[in-house]
Amino acid sequence: MALAFFGSKTTTASTNTTAPPPSPPHRILTQDELKKIAAYKAVEFVESGMVLGLGTGSTAKHAIDRIGELLHQGKLTNIIGVPTSTKTHEQALSLGIPLSDLETHPVLDLAIDGADEVDPDMNLVKGRGGSLLREKMIEACCKQFVVIVDESKLVEYVGGSGLALPVEIVPFCWRFTAKKLEAMFENAGCVAKLRVLENGEAYVTDNRNYIIDLYFKKDIGDLRAAGDAMVRLAGVVEHGMFIDMATTLIVAGELGVTVRNKS
Amino acid sequence: MALAFFGSKTTTASTNTTAPPPSPPHRILTQDELKKIAAYKAVEFVESGMVLGLGTGSTAKHAIDRIGELLHQGKLTNIIGVPTSTKTHEQALSLGIPLSDLETHPVLDLAIDGADEVDPDMNLVKGRGGSLLREKMIEACCKQFVVIVDESKLVEYVGGSGLALPVEIVPFCWRFTAKKLEAMFENAGCVAKLRVLENGEAYVTDNRNYIIDLYFKKDIGDLRAAGDAMVRLAGVVEHGMFIDMATTLIVAGELGVTVRNKS
Repeated sequence: MALAFFGSKTTTASTNTTAPPPSPPHRILTQDELKKIAAYKAVEFVESGMVLGLGTGSTAKHAIDRIGELLHQGKLTNIIGVPTSTKTHEQALSLGIPLSDLETHPVLDLAIDGADEVDPDMNLVKGRGGSLLREKMIEACCKQFVVIVDESKLVEYVGGSGLALPVEIVPFCWRFTAKKLEAMFENAGCVAKLRVLENGEAYVTDNRNYIIDLYFKKDIGDLRAAGDAMVRLAGVVEHGMFIDMATTLIVAGELGVTVRNKS
Repeated sequence: MALAFFGSKTTTASTNTTAPPPSPPHRILTQDELKKIAAYKAVEFVESGMVLGLGTGSTAKHAIDRIGELLHQGKLTNIIGVPTSTKTHEQALSLGIPLSDLETHPVLDLAIDGADEVDPDMNLVKGRGGSLLREKMIEACCKQFVVIVDESKLVEYVGGSGLALPVEIVPFCWRFTAKKLEAMFENAGCVAKLRVLENGEAYVTDNRNYIIDLYFKKDIGDLRAAGDAMVRLAGVVEHGMFIDMATTLIVAGELGVTVRNKS
C-alpha cells in the first residue's frame, strides 16, 4: 500500500561484523507514487453519504480509483460523485461510482483534485490538464476542497515553476486575445502560447474552447486583480488561478505527507 | 430618403376659407424608419480609408447597406469592414464590402452598431440579437464607437425597459449558472431565463454558447461591480453591458435626430 511507504525503512541490523551486507539503496519514490500517497491520504476525508467533486488529472485519478475500491469493499457507501471532466466521468462510470451533476447537487460536501502549482497562501494554478472551467465551477460549490500534490508543485509565486498559467478563451480571433493577454502581463515578461496537440492542431476543451498558456518571467503580483483583468477581457472564458478556494492541502514528498488546513 | 423625413412638413396654407382641404395626417414614422434614419446619420461619420467595425442587428443592417451603397457609388473608397457576427459577415460579403478580422486589424477607426438599451451615461445593453461577445471584442478596439438607436431604446437605467440583459454562458450546467446569476441580483428582483428558439431548443451563439436573459424589477446599481461579479462567475463567458464604450450616440425619434458625443 502506498500509504505504508513512509517509515517503513527495511534495513536491518546485521550480526556479521566482517562483511556487513550492503544496505538496500534508499528507494526514491517516483512522482506517480507520491501523487498516489497524497491521493490516498485525501480519500481518508471522504465519509459515507457525501456528495463529492471528482477532480481531473493524474493525481485525482488515483483518488477516484481509491474511492471506487472502498465502495466495492463496502467501506464507503452512498457516495455521489460530480465529475469535473468527461474523462473523469468515464473513469468514475467504469468504477461504478454513482454520478450526478451541479444542477441536481448545487452544494457538494467535498472535492478532491490535483493542482499544477500551489503558492504559500494555498492559491492554485490548475488547467494544465485542460479542465479548469468545469473544475472551477464544481470546486467553487464544495464545503471542503482538498488539494493533493507531490512536493514538486509547491511554488513561491503563481507561475514560479516556469510552467504555464492556462487561460480558456473562445476560439474566435484567438491570436488577438492571446496578444491582449501577453500585453496585460508585459511587466512580468509574459509569453502567451496556444496549446496545441501533437499534430499541431489547437487543443479543444470540453467546452469547445481553446487554451492559451501564459508563461511568466516574474511574479504577477496581486492575483485577484490579475484574474479580474483577464475575465473582463471579452474573449476570455476563465483563467486557471483558483484563488482562496482550497481548504486543505495534502503534499506528498520524500520526507512524508503533510496535511495543511487553510487558516 | 429617410434623412429628409424631418422638417418636411407637407401641409400647405389654403386660400379656400369655406372648405379648407383636410391637412394630410401627420405620418408617424415606423420604428424601422427611425432605425434607418439613425443608421444613415452614423454613416456620415465614415471616411474613405477607414477600418470599420460592422455591427449586428436590424439597425446596424441599415448602416451596412448604406456603406455598401456609397462604396458602389464611389463616394467611399478603400473601406475595410470587420464584421461582428456571421450574419453581418454574410451581409457585408453580399454587398461587396472588403472584409478583415481583429487579428489582421487589431485597431479599428470606427464601429457602428445598434443597442437594445442606452442609459443616460451612454452605457449600453446589447446582445438581444445574440452577438454580444464578438461585438464587444471588436467594439472595444475602435477609436470611435457610434451607437445608433431609435428613441424607444433610451432608458433611465440598465434593465429599465423591462427587457432582457443577455449573458453568454457555457452550456455545461447552464441551469446552475442561471440560478447563480438570479441569486446574484436577487435584490433587483432578477429572473433568469434561457433563451430558446421557437422550437423550444436552446439558442446557440456563434461561439456555441447559450444566452441567459436576465430580467430586473429594479435598478441593479453599480454597473461595473455587477459586470465584474458576472464575469468572475465560472461558467459566464460575457455579459451584455457595454460600459463606457460608446463615444457617439445617435438617436432617431419623431422630433428628429440627435447626435451626442461622450463628454
